[in-house]
Amino acid sequence: MRRSKRPDEVEQAAGNGLLDRRLFLTAGAAAIGSASLPGLSNAVEVLPIEPWMKTPGSPFTPYGQPSKFTSKIVRSFASAPGTTGTGTSRTPHHLLDGTITPNGLHFERHHAGIPDIDPEAHRLLIHGLVKRPLVFTLDALMRYPMESRISFIECAGNSSLLYQKDPAPVGVQPIHGLLSCAEWTGVSLAALLQEAGVEPSAQWILAEGADASGMSRSVPLAKAMDDALIAIYQNGEPVRPSNGYPMRLLLPGYEGNMNVKWLRRIKLTEGPMMTKDETSKYTILLNDGKSLQFCFAQEAKSIITRPSPGLSMGAPGLYEITGLAWSGYGKVTKVEVSADGGASWAQAALQGPVMPMAVTRFRVPWRWDGGPAVLQSRATDDSGYVQPSRSKLIADRGGRGAYHFNGVTSWGIAQGGEVKHVYA
Amino acid sequence: MRRSKRPDEVEQAAGNGLLDRRLFLTAGAAAIGSASLPGLSNAVEVLPIEPWMKTPGSPFTPYGQPSKFTSKIVRSFASAPGTTGTGTSRTPHHLLDGTITPNGLHFERHHAGIPDIDPEAHRLLIHGLVKRPLVFTLDALMRYPMESRISFIECAGNSSLLYQKDPAPVGVQPIHGLLSCAEWTGVSLAALLQEAGVEPSAQWILAEGADASGMSRSVPLAKAMDDALIAIYQNGEPVRPSNGYPMRLLLPGYEGNMNVKWLRRIKLTEGPMMTKDETSKYTILLNDGKSLQFCFAQEAKSIITRPSPGLSMGAPGLYEITGLAWSGYGKVTKVEVSADGGASWAQAALQGPVMPMAVTRFRVPWRWDGGPAVLQSRATDDSGYVQPSRSKLIADRGGRGAYHFNGVTSWGIAQGGEVKHVYA
Repeated sequence: MRRSKRPDEVEQAAGNGLLDRRLFLTAGAAAIGSASLPGLSNAVEVLPIEPWMKTPGSPFTPYGQPSKFTSKIVRSFASAPGTTGTGTSRTPHHLLDGTITPNGLHFERHHAGIPDIDPEAHRLLIHGLVKRPLVFTLDALMRYPMESRISFIECAGNSSLLYQKDPAPVGVQPIHGLLSCAEWTGVSLAALLQEAGVEPSAQWILAEGADASGMSRSVPLAKAMDDALIAIYQNGEPVRPSNGYPMRLLLPGYEGNMNVKWLRRIKLTEGPMMTKDETSKYTILLNDGKSLQFCFAQEAKSIITRPSPGLSMGAPGLYEITGLAWSGYGKVTKVEVSADGGASWAQAALQGPVMPMAVTRFRVPWRWDGGPAVLQSRATDDSGYVQPSRSKLIADRGGRGAYHFNGVTSWGIAQGGEVKHVYA
Repeated sequence: MRRSKRPDEVEQAAGNGLLDRRLFLTAGAAAIGSASLPGLSNAVEVLPIEPWMKTPGSPFTPYGQPSKFTSKIVRSFASAPGTTGTGTSRTPHHLLDGTITPNGLHFERHHAGIPDIDPEAHRLLIHGLVKRPLVFTLDALMRYPMESRISFIECAGNSSLLYQKDPAPVGVQPIHGLLSCAEWTGVSLAALLQEAGVEPSAQWILAEGADASGMSRSVPLAKAMDDALIAIYQNGEPVRPSNGYPMRLLLPGYEGNMNVKWLRRIKLTEGPMMTKDETSKYTILLNDGKSLQFCFAQEAKSIITRPSPGLSMGAPGLYEITGLAWSGYGKVTKVEVSADGGASWAQAALQGPVMPMAVTRFRVPWRWDGGPAVLQSRATDDSGYVQPSRSKLIADRGGRGAYHFNGVTSWGIAQGGEVKHVYA
């Protein structure tokens, strides 16, 4: 049973109202005084009998859908000119909580729309530098041992708006919506490669999708033999068409496009194949005009999802600041939050179980005094790496890139409660 | 990187072909010899170019849906005569994998259909033996600290077909489909109760739903103050109407109906209120005509989801036996699997992270020789409790009950591969 904390035990953890992260674990809101409590009505002892209590409700359905009252909780999307399926759709993290992204809201990045693949006709070929080329049907793969892992996938182009000189006047979904997290289940790629028999000269694999763009990437063999999956299930059910049905490659922590959807072919090779998708894009452009190529893992990063632009602050008082942190290099070990633009930092509570290459939800209590504030978060992972400030990242790398932006985001709160994207 | 296992290292773990659970962690299927490998086609080096590779695919959508090729992966449901919404819908676990149940396939048990609740009008009242009665709007609750937990919910009536004298000629979905598992996020009930100020005489709470049945249950205050949540999000998005939108009570591990959906009222009381839902049903009828009342937690249990009735076996050779195990008393610590009707048992691999009051996926490799087999699983939890055989449970309790059946299930595999529900 939870132990009460006395009000005088409640500690400030950093400037501008950030409170000790353990407050909520022990005390509840009562401890910090009723003046901070959000929006309680005057109590009544009897509630009205609403219409939905008077007649039986609606019947069962084979496959459920969200409430009509949450119809605005959807992905936003944009396509390249002249196409309907080349572009991105983005997860509305400001309207979600927890760590799992429901399948209907998982972000997408397609290079030629969503192919309508007949699973009976689909094949996965493993060939190249192997002793025995193999071809798998979906039914054959279904007999193999499976593994599940909760893993984020983040598009390499997520957050690229922060490379711009001025802060884009938008919020979490347009800026950071190319990130989602799901429980993926499938067959270990290592098991299939061992069955095919890897030749000693093989050091890379080429993974190719069955969409019209022929999306293909080179992946080091070491990653393929480590934790790669041929994913068949997403949050329990078959992978959605928009995420690779009937099967996709899952490379935990690696940039999104490498997790090749609609996977049809894996070829073992001596070196990388220099496909169009790893030469014309998905490289990091530097200040001197050179590019970093083969940047695989997504660096440690965090975003505050609530409060954030588009959500209005209510009356001054107690709020929770919450968001997501992740690292393609391992586990998140610490998230710090600032309410004064980085002048002081409080440690946030991390929601367990913290898993490598999964998003971690962080939370910290905040007593907003109604005045201006600048909210920031920064993540540290178990390699010791600390998410950099935006200005440090731009100083190191320049502002002309489009990929792997992982600097700190700032949400400015104005007197009165409007929340805006700012640089600080 | 994974280490290869030599074929002669592969050990039998129990009779009738059960193999060491560590096989798949280290070796892949190659280690047990190609004769056991499932359904590989003769390899070709070139795959045909399928129609979906030749033209751009379909466009983005705001809220995604499953493939048309998986349209049979749906809930089954049945309603009481004269109603459309009083009954149950069941999760098709034989067609799923992993541990998360996607929101569209979460089981349901409604006593008067799904109410169409306007979240702006909905209120949650906390009253009774408290110092300050409180009323919360959804917006007010949204400012409170949140917590997430991955938790199963199981209807007390799940698996009740196994009380019948003869084995029902059906499979996982009709027998065990009133079980699902999701990541629930919401406000700690303890925090709200502390804010209301619990009177020393309060020992129970009454929880009441806003559906037309006025579903209501008494819950010990100790549970309410321990790990109970007012759940607002289910797998990241707002709780579905069929699961309690805009808010439900979550009592991790307790029988499903106590996790009151559409929660509108919590009243603190000295004793249980003896509502219709805890006197006319949800008790355990014993042999002598007496009933056990207030059986809250669901006992340790496990089910094999694959192979199971309705799924056909292919050629003899390597298979994975997989399923789900859970306990309302804590964590699953062990799952044993038998292929010879309980004569010998092999320990299954438990997929991590293993969490209390969440389902745990178990897996064990099996070399099926094409002959008869009887597959069983039994779970042990961290209280030391072992899931009983069906015959022991019936001997202890009689066969007239409808609730809390947690005995072992048997799937018989006939020569030729047909899978049937049997008693063994």
